Amino acid sequence: MENGLKERKNSIKEIDNEANSGISIKGILSLVTSNIDENNGKRVIKLVADYLSQDFPYELGSDDVYLTSGCTQAIDVALTTLARPGANILLPRPGFPIYELCASFRNLEVRHFNLIPDKGWEVDLDAVKALADHNTVAIVIINPGNPCGNVYSHGHLEKIAELAKTLGIVVIADEVYGHLAFGDNPFVPMGIFGSMVPVFTLGSLSKRWIVPGWRLGWFVTCDPNGMFKNPKIIERIKKYFDISSGPATIIQAAVPQILELTEEEFFREVLNLLKQTANICYEKVNETPGLACHYKPEGSMAVMVKLNLSQLEDISDDIDFAFKLAKEESVIILPGVTVGLKNWIRITFAAEPSSLIEGLERINSFCQRHAGDA
Amino acid sequence: MENGLKERKNSIKEIDNEANSGISIKGILSLVTSNIDENNGKRVIKLVADYLSQDFPYELGSDDVYLTSGCTQAIDVALTTLARPGANILLPRPGFPIYELCASFRNLEVRHFNLIPDKGWEVDLDAVKALADHNTVAIVIINPGNPCGNVYSHGHLEKIAELAKTLGIVVIADEVYGHLAFGDNPFVPMGIFGSMVPVFTLGSLSKRWIVPGWRLGWFVTCDPNGMFKNPKIIERIKKYFDISSGPATIIQAAVPQILELTEEEFFREVLNLLKQTANICYEKVNETPGLACHYKPEGSMAVMVKLNLSQLEDISDDIDFAFKLAKEESVIILPGVTVGLKNWIRITFAAEPSSLIEGLERINSFCQRHAGDA
Repeated sequence: MENGLKERKNSIKEIDNEANSGISIKGILSLVTSNIDENNGKRVIKLVADYLSQDFPYELGSDDVYLTSGCTQAIDVALTTLARPGANILLPRPGFPIYELCASFRNLEVRHFNLIPDKGWEVDLDAVKALADHNTVAIVIINPGNPCGNVYSHGHLEKIAELAKTLGIVVIADEVYGHLAFGDNPFVPMGIFGSMVPVFTLGSLSKRWIVPGWRLGWFVTCDPNGMFKNPKIIERIKKYFDISSGPATIIQAAVPQILELTEEEFFREVLNLLKQTANICYEKVNETPGLACHYKPEGSMAVMVKLNLSQLEDISDDIDFAFKLAKEESVIILPGVTVGLKNWIRITFAAEPSSLIEGLERINSFCQRHAGDA
Repeated sequence: MENGLKERKNSIKEIDNEANSGISIKGILSLVTSNIDENNGKRVIKLVADYLSQDFPYELGSDDVYLTSGCTQAIDVALTTLARPGANILLPRPGFPIYELCASFRNLEVRHFNLIPDKGWEVDLDAVKALADHNTVAIVIINPGNPCGNVYSHGHLEKIAELAKTLGIVVIADEVYGHLAFGDNPFVPMGIFGSMVPVFTLGSLSKRWIVPGWRLGWFVTCDPNGMFKNPKIIERIKKYFDISSGPATIIQAAVPQILELTEEEFFREVLNLLKQTANICYEKVNETPGLACHYKPEGSMAVMVKLNLSQLEDISDDIDFAFKLAKEESVIILPGVTVGLKNWIRITFAAEPSSLIEGLERINSFCQRHAGDA
């Protein structure tokens, strides 16, 4: 009912609309303004659709794109949309802990499959096959990967899509680090396999455009064949957005400039810098006793490092490592258990090189000391 | 675990923190910056606590205040925090439909109590008593009221608080229109009764400061006696915020200036303007055949108007009224069924006076025509 009315919003005059409930003290509260805002919202959606479609073999429409308050909200939308009594979801280990927390709030059972460190953190496809059953609703793929820094090949993504198709489940493609790939594999969006298997693509401005905290993300249904576009699911998504607070309008207003005017040079410089800091991180870590990093990160902003506790005399585990490091060297790293891998640590290399080097040198001193070498 | 680490964030250097995962192309990605951001976040929380405490007989602490992405998110936090299998919540009729939608997503059964039009839209306390049972978790009170324009007296709010205490339920005080009271009753925040009954206060910058779309709100626990502050509930609230996207940091950064520097003159002018437009609305509506408004709004930005369908020849109900009005006069109003009252309509008077008059005159023409008078 209200939707029907909403469609008439370009009419000359309107004296009711929740979104307009502002009043300008200068007497120019304007229904015109509100139409501009709404049109701007539609324009932003169209721009995001066009932006993502550049890499797709089909065109995304405005109906496929929903703006979210950062990628965090997009995760919640994906999980809430798919939740139903008894359902389970397949999550990567290591992964991003908000998925687990969100699943527990939305009553989705979590089942973990491993990412394989010696194969560039690829998905253990056999494990996925073994975990899935008729109550499995989706698999989450984070690419470029957080916390591992992996970038999956076209071939590996295709295998994941084929398996998801066989299992009859949706792929939730967390591409918040989309395009932040600086190694051999280029970034390939999972949505290109949308004709094979329905994909929910999650993304945001934060990482590629380096605007953390702006809270402008998207939830996108990549499903050109309309496999899950039954009216019920779409209605559920739309209703969920009715109770959800999207991105601030003043940030939406900046999106056209951000998407249309950012120069290639900016992206190149970011990638060069990340490649440089990833290398620094990889090298320094591997010079440090008790730490090992077999996979040089090729994307995102983080890397997983294995602790060799046999070389660290008085460190009991990754949490003990993190606490002692914080206390002794004022350096904070994330213990691996928080992302699902005990006795690993996660290091972010998205730091200005000299700070990163300083931090890594402190970690080195710490490890030297605790290895009994110093 | 992670919380323990977070507390050390003021340490000299840190190379990992999700919030920091930005990298400045100019080489100044700075951990310093991230500390400023975090400190700014804490400062904003403290300022909101201080702002609300001005009207309270006790001091709110920073632990009581959670920033949200607009009041919409605060509603979701309140309902999600209280939801448990079998639980029900008491909602006003008429009310704000996001509560119903949110309750259905969070598996809370909804029970409606009436607001009484002839008593200034006061809560039907007997109905509340009759509806509540041992599975009732909360009652929602919207004051100043949307969609009715009511402002409750201290005495009425106290009775609600006493009843909630007797029933052993939480009061969810939706005060998104807080301080927008321009009639006889001053705005009284429900939180002043927090020593009697636990209150969740929901609010935002949007209305009082006229910044719709900025999406900066708050969820506040007013509970000086710690009645619901058992660790489990607080942990649940905190965890829910971990999966939630709060307000954009660049908007948070503006809060100190907004809260500290807005002059009284601004608030006075807004109230004067709303009072003027509320009067215009009340008078014009009551000059219109088929419409009746017995209660002159004293707060918020909306009013409920009763349709007398016996005077409107070819209008079947409120939805028919709204559609024909939109088609014939390009004026949009909200049919009452959308807020729970069939054959009423909701009109927002938060409009520039000349636009409002124009809109109301069109409604008048429409009703004249359909009354067969023209």
